[in-house]
Amino acid sequence: MADRVVVLGIDPGTITTGFGAVSLEGGAARALGWGSITTSSSAPLAERLVRIHSEVARQIEKYRPDEVAVEDVFQAKNVKSVLKLGHARGVALLAAAEAGVPVFEYAPREVKQSVVGVGSATKQQVSSMVRRLLELGDAELKEDESDAVAVALCHLHKRERIR
Amino acid sequence: MADRVVVLGIDPGTITTGFGAVSLEGGAARALGWGSITTSSSAPLAERLVRIHSEVARQIEKYRPDEVAVEDVFQAKNVKSVLKLGHARGVALLAAAEAGVPVFEYAPREVKQSVVGVGSATKQQVSSMVRRLLELGDAELKEDESDAVAVALCHLHKRERIR
Repeated sequence: MADRVVVLGIDPGTITTGFGAVSLEGGAARALGWGSITTSSSAPLAERLVRIHSEVARQIEKYRPDEVAVEDVFQAKNVKSVLKLGHARGVALLAAAEAGVPVFEYAPREVKQSVVGVGSATKQQVSSMVRRLLELGDAELKEDESDAVAVALCHLHKRERIR
Repeated sequence: MADRVVVLGIDPGTITTGFGAVSLEGGAARALGWGSITTSSSAPLAERLVRIHSEVARQIEKYRPDEVAVEDVFQAKNVKSVLKLGHARGVALLAAAEAGVPVFEYAPREVKQSVVGVGSATKQQVSSMVRRLLELGDAELKEDESDAVAVALCHLHKRERIR
């Protein structure tokens, strides 16, 4: 049995895709790293998808996660924006599958419930809890990045309960 | 100037993705081939995306299209189904972009208007017009396949007008 597990959380978007790698070892969660993949909204969609796909693949190669966790989507402003999000999410999932890494999906409410303890928590609450849980202090952590770390933490919680 | 142009039309879906390659040479459109990529709805989403991506890449390698045409989506039953469609569409667009083939998108109404002459045409009307225009007779042509051929034809029409 592996005593150390690494989860890569991904928060996909056509403009910005956040990611965050978290390890769990001896009951302690540690942030290995995080960042975001930003694409120009003026670039053709197909080009942006190539960038998201290759960057996610690069992060998987870098952190070698045992599992990938992605937020699921249930609500959205309009069909156009969900479709675009689906494109970004699709190429991110593809990168994980191509690397043979299992993917787990969580609803936003589940992530907030798991990390903050409240399903209706705000983004600020998620961000400050992520900082506290991983002892990140004042480290720079953008919104998409803390969302990505949060889904990784959520997966680690759920995972522990399953075992 | 190339006198012959090949367009690969794609009608993406998480269960079935139709494709159809059409050439235009000396003013005459000809169907080079068509088919569909079917994935099991019981297979994990990520696995299905790998299959759609690799199969679309294979068709691009086979037909060497100058351009790829894909139907755009504006309406849908629910967020869940649009998101899934976005995943399939995203990995199909990725395959085209990775091969360096430009992608063009058309609204369903545009495709019907272009092929049948009526934006509100039924799938049967699209299918029968595709058969007539390309002289396919009784050839087996599934719904997703005739939709894919239709979007390729639509692109060829629009393209001619642009030149």
